[in-house]
Amino acid sequence: MADNKKRRRATHDAGAERIPFKSKVRPDSDILQILKNLKDAAVASSSSSKTLTLSDLDLADNFREVKDLPLSAVQTSIEDLILSLARSILSGQGFSYTVPSRSSANQLYIPELDRIVLKDKASVRPFANVSTVRKTTITTRILRLIHELCSKQIHVTKRDLFYSDVKLFVDQTQSDAVLDDVSCILGCTRSSLNVVASEKGVVVGRLIFSDHGDVIDCTKMGMGGKAIPPNIDRVGDMQSDALFILLVEKDAAYMRLAEDRFYNRFPCIIVTAKGQPDVATRLFLRKMKMELNLPVLALVDSDPYGLKILSVYGCGSKNMSYDSANLTTPDIKWLGVRPSDLDKYNIPELCRLDMTEQDIKTGKDLLEEDFVKKNPGWVEELNLMVKSKHKAEIQALSSFGFQYLTEVYLPLKLQQKDWI
Amino acid sequence: MADNKKRRRATHDAGAERIPFKSKVRPDSDILQILKNLKDAAVASSSSSKTLTLSDLDLADNFREVKDLPLSAVQTSIEDLILSLARSILSGQGFSYTVPSRSSANQLYIPELDRIVLKDKASVRPFANVSTVRKTTITTRILRLIHELCSKQIHVTKRDLFYSDVKLFVDQTQSDAVLDDVSCILGCTRSSLNVVASEKGVVVGRLIFSDHGDVIDCTKMGMGGKAIPPNIDRVGDMQSDALFILLVEKDAAYMRLAEDRFYNRFPCIIVTAKGQPDVATRLFLRKMKMELNLPVLALVDSDPYGLKILSVYGCGSKNMSYDSANLTTPDIKWLGVRPSDLDKYNIPELCRLDMTEQDIKTGKDLLEEDFVKKNPGWVEELNLMVKSKHKAEIQALSSFGFQYLTEVYLPLKLQQKDWI
Repeated sequence: MADNKKRRRATHDAGAERIPFKSKVRPDSDILQILKNLKDAAVASSSSSKTLTLSDLDLADNFREVKDLPLSAVQTSIEDLILSLARSILSGQGFSYTVPSRSSANQLYIPELDRIVLKDKASVRPFANVSTVRKTTITTRILRLIHELCSKQIHVTKRDLFYSDVKLFVDQTQSDAVLDDVSCILGCTRSSLNVVASEKGVVVGRLIFSDHGDVIDCTKMGMGGKAIPPNIDRVGDMQSDALFILLVEKDAAYMRLAEDRFYNRFPCIIVTAKGQPDVATRLFLRKMKMELNLPVLALVDSDPYGLKILSVYGCGSKNMSYDSANLTTPDIKWLGVRPSDLDKYNIPELCRLDMTEQDIKTGKDLLEEDFVKKNPGWVEELNLMVKSKHKAEIQALSSFGFQYLTEVYLPLKLQQKDWI
Repeated sequence: MADNKKRRRATHDAGAERIPFKSKVRPDSDILQILKNLKDAAVASSSSSKTLTLSDLDLADNFREVKDLPLSAVQTSIEDLILSLARSILSGQGFSYTVPSRSSANQLYIPELDRIVLKDKASVRPFANVSTVRKTTITTRILRLIHELCSKQIHVTKRDLFYSDVKLFVDQTQSDAVLDDVSCILGCTRSSLNVVASEKGVVVGRLIFSDHGDVIDCTKMGMGGKAIPPNIDRVGDMQSDALFILLVEKDAAYMRLAEDRFYNRFPCIIVTAKGQPDVATRLFLRKMKMELNLPVLALVDSDPYGLKILSVYGCGSKNMSYDSANLTTPDIKWLGVRPSDLDKYNIPELCRLDMTEQDIKTGKDLLEEDFVKKNPGWVEELNLMVKSKHKAEIQALSSFGFQYLTEVYLPLKLQQKDWI
């Protein structure tokens, strides 16, 4: 069938375009110049405008954010907190924590910051009350365990934390929830507490960094790449001659890029969380963006979940909004696969999948989200998706050949500055 | 609570044993000697007895196994096959494939090999038959695509393969199934076909290997470790001064071991697939075992799934039994966490979870499996689990302290040669 197509084309096209759009790709030097300009713009904008904080907007009193704290500061905070509790008890005022509310009613998207943050609602959690005595005890126990992690300077998972006192916690949701409370009480990120999530991301390309004291050169990581470390605080010394970061949703596209060493043709850092973004990959992406001042281009499926994933990297997830400043990477550009690409690149009808009712609902919900609304290009694309009721995976590009992604689609996208 | 326990113990024990069993751990030099003996035994047994094959047992005619073939051999096989089909058509005998059956009725566990293999049943798939014409066409298309991969020398995923001709394949299960057929027809492994699965395993510790031409030193991979490459054929030059391979079921235990650099105290290679073993990790483990002649010790949850995971590494999964020789690692020892450890290490009742009806059924089913029955120690442990109706995760050891796993449990296990 493909042969027929090729032959047919060859007759009226003198063989110039056996692979769709291949003849449109200009020499790499032209594309590299475009990427250099993109990078220079990213550097310029980062030096001219620093990342806004709540204080810059005079909102620090009304909203709440946590920040990365060194281990010693966390330890001191815990000790200060416990001392103040002891004083309160001794002075006859009893024993209670003031816990910031993490409910969705207490969350707000701030356009200037382009992030979801917590409002200032908080509740008192007294020990001398039957309805809160358990939670107060759990909070105290978690504080003690975190203090132990600080003094031993080790990292553990949430599961380890739960098993430290099963009798008290009963089930892991309880210790997990209080762990987030403790982050908010101490005003620090969860990674500052040395409690880490399991990592699943990988990185490959033009990046050198140190992980737990070892120097890692990501151009020399073969096809498998380097597993992104679970503990961002032991990651440092990032160096790179890349012109951009390519954020990839799926493993299969990542593999194609890694095997073809795409980063050698167009200097870049390729990173993927293999689906839903995990905390470690989000922290790692942000650190790269901040330290290296590189533009971030995203390659995701053309479906509502692709855009949702992009939004988690960009604006954060609702259940960790107290930590949005540290987990989000500003100014991610949507490179592809965008709904308009389906027609533009003549993706065969058969490779376009029908959206389910749920897909369409998710798409419509996204149209109501602030982070989508602020970008007219995204709204247009999403409207097109919901209207056409078609979605497509990055892999759909394989219908033009296994290396179409790296040899035609991405070079052409970069050449045409086709990101929004 | 933990403090009370410590104080209580201190009074009748003069403080010698604040952490259970810690005083039983002998100096590292003693344990290292035990591990050296274990490794020497593994080397000796590998040189005295080579891995049995079907031919060694005179079973090659009755059973079927596939083997790793170089790309050029796969290419030649496909060309030979197509030529013979052409001859058959020209001689008036029509066009059909002979496809080995992969059904469970055609599978058998061979105790001498300690693997599941395929029996010799096969079916004819003629083109000139309405019931098989589609599958014959798909088979031909897949052969052509594999041939393209061989000449381009690239790797793709099953999903890429599907998208190469959605019109013909309709859904991915059809191209996947025929891909396994093609493996059996050509007599080679799926990785020889350059179709790879997404990888999720990581490795860290005393191993140096090459991945796609890059030299990787796994002692210098920080805490994140090295992502196991999806394409085993580009992995080579394995070197190691390790005394054993520690195969870990779960990510959290892997992280503890990596952060504590357990491999520096007891020279080893630590590997995990983060749950269910994927093909890439299974191939990688086997390659390490075969090239380095190291004993493999497994650390899994004390539940039926832990043992099941061990069995997939050891004897293969039923749906890829035609490839069992290349995917399985012989002689994996069950180090822990074993059902008998729960009492032996006084795991608190609260950290033991009740087995569900499904767990108990899975446990009983395992007792009927040949690979369990051949190991009396495993039968005994599994009986104990099913009888006690208790399971426990590796993380349950955290109830004695976050580093109990690396500082007491594992050293003591190794010292006591407590593997079966």
